[in-house]
Amino acid sequence: MSKEQTLITGQQRSTDSWLTIRGRHFRSRLILGIEQYTSAKVIAEVLRSGRCDVFITTFDLRNSKPSIPLSELSDILEIDEFIWMGTTSFARTQEEALRTAYILRESLGIDVIKLDVRPIDSRPDNEQTVAAAKELIGQDFAVLPFIQPDADTATELATIGCSAVRVLASQVGSNRGIDDELAIRRVYDAVDIPVIIEGGLGSPAHVVSAMELGAAAVLVNTAVACAPDPVLMASSMRHAVLAGENFVAARQPATASGAGHG
Amino acid sequence: MSKEQTLITGQQRSTDSWLTIRGRHFRSRLILGIEQYTSAKVIAEVLRSGRCDVFITTFDLRNSKPSIPLSELSDILEIDEFIWMGTTSFARTQEEALRTAYILRESLGIDVIKLDVRPIDSRPDNEQTVAAAKELIGQDFAVLPFIQPDADTATELATIGCSAVRVLASQVGSNRGIDDELAIRRVYDAVDIPVIIEGGLGSPAHVVSAMELGAAAVLVNTAVACAPDPVLMASSMRHAVLAGENFVAARQPATASGAGHG
Repeated sequence: MSKEQTLITGQQRSTDSWLTIRGRHFRSRLILGIEQYTSAKVIAEVLRSGRCDVFITTFDLRNSKPSIPLSELSDILEIDEFIWMGTTSFARTQEEALRTAYILRESLGIDVIKLDVRPIDSRPDNEQTVAAAKELIGQDFAVLPFIQPDADTATELATIGCSAVRVLASQVGSNRGIDDELAIRRVYDAVDIPVIIEGGLGSPAHVVSAMELGAAAVLVNTAVACAPDPVLMASSMRHAVLAGENFVAARQPATASGAGHG
Repeated sequence: MSKEQTLITGQQRSTDSWLTIRGRHFRSRLILGIEQYTSAKVIAEVLRSGRCDVFITTFDLRNSKPSIPLSELSDILEIDEFIWMGTTSFARTQEEALRTAYILRESLGIDVIKLDVRPIDSRPDNEQTVAAAKELIGQDFAVLPFIQPDADTATELATIGCSAVRVLASQVGSNRGIDDELAIRRVYDAVDIPVIIEGGLGSPAHVVSAMELGAAAVLVNTAVACAPDPVLMASSMRHAVLAGENFVAARQPATASGAGHG
């Protein structure tokens, strides 16, 4: 695979990043969860089709190994060109989340954590998430925690130094879209860190709505992973993000000639 | 301007056309109305940004001249590479619509008519539209009539040989999206000609929803023309169409490897 094919330029309209962590620039506003895939080939094609620049991996505590076929992947994808983020999406308790994060750092050198603490599969526990975030930041991780949309929790997470906050749109895997726009707007108003909208985003219309609400980025997982054609679905979601991003920008007074937009 | 810049490839996923009229292939599923613009430069940039392959023009009956600056446009855009379509969007009666069509053919050689008969600015008159369509088809025009979503009217229009049928999503200029999904679904089920959804599509989320409903294409006008940055808005709508199109396709069982989709 040539470098050109894997080098990611998801954010076509500009080269600005919406988040920078320790010199690593997040440009694509589409983040795809890939922990549900078993085929390295499909992961590679989905990431390319979505023009993603974040690579999410995790560690299976039960089987003591990375949950996706990393060595196989590195044969077909230049994964070092992605920003590596570890996820604790299988953690049901704060302790499991912390353990996963430590193992990810020890085994793969990952220090950016997509922090999930979900006692019930589909629902983040805000209190345990705050506690885990504090601990991880104390241990010099960059943390992107996942919460139910609550402005006070988001404020606390921003105050302790989280890099971004991820808020639940609707039940994970539900493909239902955004349940409570107002709650998400309140989070958006409360914090200065980027807000990522995630969970239940099942169609490009949901993604557009999330961008309209002010999301810096969206995280899509099940809708792509479970689609009959996940590669095409990743492309759909990429276009939806660009549609939403351009829509928000197009409603601002024009600054330049307007030519050359993506 | 180089040929490459104006040659249109809106439909990235495939080169199939969704409509062919007398050897002219409609590929982009985004059609932009441009009769509200006065600047040739903006028209050119909007069409490019939307990757449109249809060029819509009309004739101002009151001032006896084309409603957009055609000569100026041909200096900056290779308009002959577009499919020319004449619109009767200012016609309030069947007679005005017919007169506009005849003038468009005499003055510009246009024989593809986007037929609107709207006694009230925002509302097509189905009965007069059918009558005008019959007359125009008898005079060897290709006709794409605009109706309020009604399956019987759509069936009649298909039977008399219309090339496609355009159905109203919501009040023209309202930016409200789709008022009556069921009525549009019934039109879609009733006819075999392409269904174009149009009117009130104000955001990329509306466009995605229209594509999900089975639209072969969408026609967007006010939302782009009245945006502070119409060029960026055209880009947003283009991505929305691609998002919707890929979404529909991604839910079909995969046929190929899935690689290389747009």
